Amino acid sequence: MELLKQKIIAEGEVLPGDILKIDSFLNQQIDPETTYAMGKEICRIFSDVKIDKVVTIEASGIAIGLVTAHELGVKMVFGRKNKSNVMVDDVYVADVYSYTKQVTNHISISKKFLEAGENVLIVDDFLANGSAALGLCNIVEQAGGKVVGISVAVEKAFQDGEAKLVEAGYRVEPLVRIKSLKDGKVTFVED
Amino acid sequence: MELLKQKIIAEGEVLPGDILKIDSFLNQQIDPETTYAMGKEICRIFSDVKIDKVVTIEASGIAIGLVTAHELGVKMVFGRKNKSNVMVDDVYVADVYSYTKQVTNHISISKKFLEAGENVLIVDDFLANGSAALGLCNIVEQAGGKVVGISVAVEKAFQDGEAKLVEAGYRVEPLVRIKSLKDGKVTFVED
Repeated sequence: MELLKQKIIAEGEVLPGDILKIDSFLNQQIDPETTYAMGKEICRIFSDVKIDKVVTIEASGIAIGLVTAHELGVKMVFGRKNKSNVMVDDVYVADVYSYTKQVTNHISISKKFLEAGENVLIVDDFLANGSAALGLCNIVEQAGGKVVGISVAVEKAFQDGEAKLVEAGYRVEPLVRIKSLKDGKVTFVED
Repeated sequence: MELLKQKIIAEGEVLPGDILKIDSFLNQQIDPETTYAMGKEICRIFSDVKIDKVVTIEASGIAIGLVTAHELGVKMVFGRKNKSNVMVDDVYVADVYSYTKQVTNHISISKKFLEAGENVLIVDDFLANGSAALGLCNIVEQAGGKVVGISVAVEKAFQDGEAKLVEAGYRVEPLVRIKSLKDGKVTFVED
């Protein structure tokens, strides 16, 4: 997605540890135009598939998940990273290790919001080692749903997330694939 | 906002401790149509004011903040409840006590995303005791910005949040005001 590549080149910062910081339009400040364009693009990519629900994870997945769900005309559900007091039982849970934050999060989604037989599209901001996406797939499948695809804004293609997900049988469609963040420079995988 | 009242009556659950659970369309599952309608309504209410930015707080403020910002044609920034490793310095911070979760959260926003002289609209899902809104106002003002209004989807009008905010000089515009949650029944303040 050319617009997203341009935004990353113009505004992204590469930090030590292969971190790409794009908090000026995706991760803390959100540029609605870019977000809406990403939602439309994900919808276009998956136009050949019937999708009943979009599932994402708080916090940075919510914006892109919402606009994608709106484009598709379906509801969106986001996984919570910690159980809140308000949601104490009847949840599906998966454990996800965050390499960035070096903690294990318990992702949970209320059982009320996932149904057997649903076609689910998983959407998130980043795909790196695939832990979050695999956790969400696991939750959808606990509910008897079918993951018809996984789309992310940015894939770190130098990590093994896509390989793991494809091996597990999932269709993976990132909007941009990053080949390298070496020497502070963003290099994309050519289309 | 009549649509929101109807959704609350149809889908809201009242839990002990004056908790209104509306996670079927606002707090975990998100109904994009309702969210987009809320954004349009907030934009209409504040059509007499120049707004440069929308500020909200993760996680449940992000959806409504995004669509409001899109309607207004401005960017949105969300406060984080815990510092992540990615965002270690150069942040404005305010402490906010959550009565629901009984913890003090440190809300933070990167200094890069707030500017002196900006007119800021604060948007959130709930207003109860006003702690989160006051914390966000504090952060905006640390940056030299002006809070031109505070809008929330649902105000618990039996708590003192609006009174505190109005006394502090802020314009408060909830989409619905709840008078009582007594005996498990939702009663609205009449318009």
